[in-house]
Amino acid sequence: MCARAMANFGLSEMRLVAPRDGWPQKTRMKKGAISAAAGATSILDRAKLFNDLPAAIADLHHVYATTARFRGQAKPVYAPSAAMGEAQARIMQGQRVGVMFGAERTGLDNDEVGLASALITFPVNPDFASLNLAQAVLLTGYEWFRASQGEALPFAMPQMSPPAKQETLHAFFSYFEAHLDRAGYFFPESKRPVMVRNLRNIFHRLGPSEQDIRSLRGSIDWLLRRGQKSKDDDSDGA
Amino acid sequence: MCARAMANFGLSEMRLVAPRDGWPQKTRMKKGAISAAAGATSILDRAKLFNDLPAAIADLHHVYATTARFRGQAKPVYAPSAAMGEAQARIMQGQRVGVMFGAERTGLDNDEVGLASALITFPVNPDFASLNLAQAVLLTGYEWFRASQGEALPFAMPQMSPPAKQETLHAFFSYFEAHLDRAGYFFPESKRPVMVRNLRNIFHRLGPSEQDIRSLRGSIDWLLRRGQKSKDDDSDGA
Repeated sequence: MCARAMANFGLSEMRLVAPRDGWPQKTRMKKGAISAAAGATSILDRAKLFNDLPAAIADLHHVYATTARFRGQAKPVYAPSAAMGEAQARIMQGQRVGVMFGAERTGLDNDEVGLASALITFPVNPDFASLNLAQAVLLTGYEWFRASQGEALPFAMPQMSPPAKQETLHAFFSYFEAHLDRAGYFFPESKRPVMVRNLRNIFHRLGPSEQDIRSLRGSIDWLLRRGQKSKDDDSDGA
Repeated sequence: MCARAMANFGLSEMRLVAPRDGWPQKTRMKKGAISAAAGATSILDRAKLFNDLPAAIADLHHVYATTARFRGQAKPVYAPSAAMGEAQARIMQGQRVGVMFGAERTGLDNDEVGLASALITFPVNPDFASLNLAQAVLLTGYEWFRASQGEALPFAMPQMSPPAKQETLHAFFSYFEAHLDRAGYFFPESKRPVMVRNLRNIFHRLGPSEQDIRSLRGSIDWLLRRGQKSKDDDSDGA
């Protein structure tokens, strides 16, 4: 699950310190890991193994330790968003940056936390503060990706038609209001200005495209030519 | 895992639409769910069951659909951070807001996405874009908590001692530089100004507390009184 979360956010270098069950894992457990990695197995295959934490971080310039608990250690404490913003700035300067995560049940011990340059903790509900290891990796990776990629999304709202120009909108207003005038909709006459303003604001808020206006006008045309109020329909207006 | 992620970020109202295996689940599966929820079982116990999606969202004013795939539907597409910022503003205005997540393997279908006011998609590595359901709930909940709680962290760097005043820092500089002068450290004399400036900047960057300065001064005092260079130590300075 950690490898998968890393792959989701473009991270690839996993380092393992003295895994309890050895590495590579025995066949049965390895199968579970491969399934959980959901295709991110190249990260597992290339994971580097270290006997102790100092060796694992020796070549790094700056190391964050993730922790859910207050440690009483005089180190800066960052939210993951702030930490990954800072990490990105350091990497731009040519630094090598790492993030340490503790084992599933125990987390990092105080000596391990002591090796870090700074701490990351997560903004969570204080009544339910426990994140598991893969969740912590996911949130850190997510903030790393946001910091490094500027929150690029895989897609945006399709622009199938350009936004309507004001002249298109105004022509639509004239058309719509002329038909409503003919149908006696603006009544009493004294209310006409505010009724017109309210109706126009609906379409302003919509932020319509040229095609939206054509579609609206087409549907109203159709109603004018073919529409008829059904006999048991008590609703007002068309 | 979804209930747990919700609890982590202070969310409590889970709605389920036509669960494949019924609800409550059969005993064996329920055990798995309770274990994965890691204590957030009250959310499972209070989950509301609906036969279809329109019924599940009927009382909401604004609904986001989460999707990893481009749908070609003319709806605004938000990153989770922007969506949850907007959701928070709507809730402040008294609106009820929901987020729809699809089933694990299939996601939401196009008709389901069609019921949404806007879409949420995740900034992910395009080469490895698949998030599972619990990961999507975790990231959305995380952004919800950040938007609603202002990224409040459970703890900060301890302020065991107030930051050092400039006069404390300057007194330390005088003390340290006087001893270095006596030891002939600043050589040649022409280099003294730049050497002093570089040394002082180390301590400026440190941003020391009053206690930090006392600790530094104490350790230097100790070295002056008791320290001696070991015979086989070739390193320069003390």
